[in-house]
Amino acid sequence: MRVRHKPWAKEKIDQYPQYVVANPEQYKGKWHEVFGNNHPLHIEVGTGKGQFMTEMAKANPGINYMGIELYDSVIITALDRLIEADLPNLRLLNVNANDLAKYFAKNDVDQVYLNFSDPWPKGRHEKRRLTYKDFLKLYEEIMVDGGEIHFKTDNQGLFEYSLMSFSKYGLLLKYVSLDFHNSEYEGNIMTEYEEKFSEKGHRIYRCEVKYPN
Amino acid sequence: MRVRHKPWAKEKIDQYPQYVVANPEQYKGKWHEVFGNNHPLHIEVGTGKGQFMTEMAKANPGINYMGIELYDSVIITALDRLIEADLPNLRLLNVNANDLAKYFAKNDVDQVYLNFSDPWPKGRHEKRRLTYKDFLKLYEEIMVDGGEIHFKTDNQGLFEYSLMSFSKYGLLLKYVSLDFHNSEYEGNIMTEYEEKFSEKGHRIYRCEVKYPN
Ligand SMILES: C[S@@+](CC[C@H](N)C(=O)[O-])C[C@H]1O[C@@H](n2cnc3c(N)ncnc32)[C@H](O)[C@@H]1O
Ligand SMILES: C[S@@+](CC[C@H](N)C(=O)[O-])C[C@H]1O[C@@H](n2cnc3c(N)ncnc32)[C@H](O)[C@@H]1O
Repeated sequence: MRVRHKPWAKEKIDQYPQYVVANPEQYKGKWHEVFGNNHPLHIEVGTGKGQFMTEMAKANPGINYMGIELYDSVIITALDRLIEADLPNLRLLNVNANDLAKYFAKNDVDQVYLNFSDPWPKGRHEKRRLTYKDFLKLYEEIMVDGGEIHFKTDNQGLFEYSLMSFSKYGLLLKYVSLDFHNSEYEGNIMTEYEEKFSEKGHRIYRCEVKYPN
Repeated sequence: MRVRHKPWAKEKIDQYPQYVVANPEQYKGKWHEVFGNNHPLHIEVGTGKGQFMTEMAKANPGINYMGIELYDSVIITALDRLIEADLPNLRLLNVNANDLAKYFAKNDVDQVYLNFSDPWPKGRHEKRRLTYKDFLKLYEEIMVDGGEIHFKTDNQGLFEYSLMSFSKYGLLLKYVSLDFHNSEYEGNIMTEYEEKFSEKGHRIYRCEVKYPN
């Protein structure tokens, strides 16, 4: 993603510590305090401008959502959406996915969403792909047993790689669609990238994989 | 596949018992006697008119091949090819894949090819798909440990189903291509159906899965 430098972004984020959670390490193992309930927690890693998380949170008030995004200049748009929608069940985290285990304890998270993750097509960048084995281990360390990853992308190479990476890690492929927008799936909520790339005629791939119980 | 009745097919097959192996149950556990060597044995289940097996056998003289086909009116074309090419490392079997365990013992087979298998798209016909769990069990019963299935198809639904079926059975996805004819794979040998459907512009899907060692 092209990232524009927005010097005021950091400042604005600091003004909304209840939305873009400040000092998130303090909630490790007790995110229910932030949400005020024990509903399941679903996170999107690499949430970008937050359209998917916002719409999911509106559609599913019984689930808590958290959008995780590295760049302040990008998450700022997700923050604007959240200020506008004022959703009790959505929070944002402006951190690097590499550090997830700093902020979440085992069983904190029930489900991980990966949407249109950066493909890092070069072999030497494999470790940066959010479906690389080290990330699969990280998700396992913070999720419940039997937790799931739900993954959408238009990138054929990343999808192929991810199917193999999931299999090698021992995850169960519960669902796969190789042309999701022409499938029978109902109630899909689109991400920004999904809208952009499906309009261009790209096929959308989607799968759900499950960790062992 | 549309099957034309060819009354003379059975008769011709009977004339070539060295090519379309007669009474195959007698070779269970000792197929090396048929080939006169201990080379690995790769079988194609649903070989149709045998183009793939014939070309594979020509290209890989150090591997033994066996094309398995239910219909005599179809396998007859594979027989004609084999008479023409006179390959020492290719044999045909005119039997139903359901009965594989009658003809092969554990470790007899090193690899299974499935190419453009009948899709049986209706849910109630799931059990007929050659990637249904009962077939995966059958292949396991006749293959070496760590044996592989190599699968090609243009049928999106069958490929999705098969990826899930393989995963559920505990097979490792070693390789997957979601657009095989535009991939970097070299040395592909085309099947009859592959030529027909790729000419029509269909995408070809391909994967390799491995049983536990
Ligand atoms: C291609 S965008 C997709 C955004 C959104 N999920 C969508 O589908 O529209 C990928 C996003 O992931 C973020 N990202 C990539 N690596 C990350 C990491 N290690 N930690 C947090 N965010 C990351 C990028 O900054 C970018 O905003
Ligand atoms: C669609 S054709 C594909 C033929 C060839 N593999 C190709 O790719 O050109 C599928 C073939 O599998 C055969 N077949 C289907 N079920 C079978 C079974 N249970 N046992 C043996 N052959 C079977 C059919 O008769 C048919 O010839």
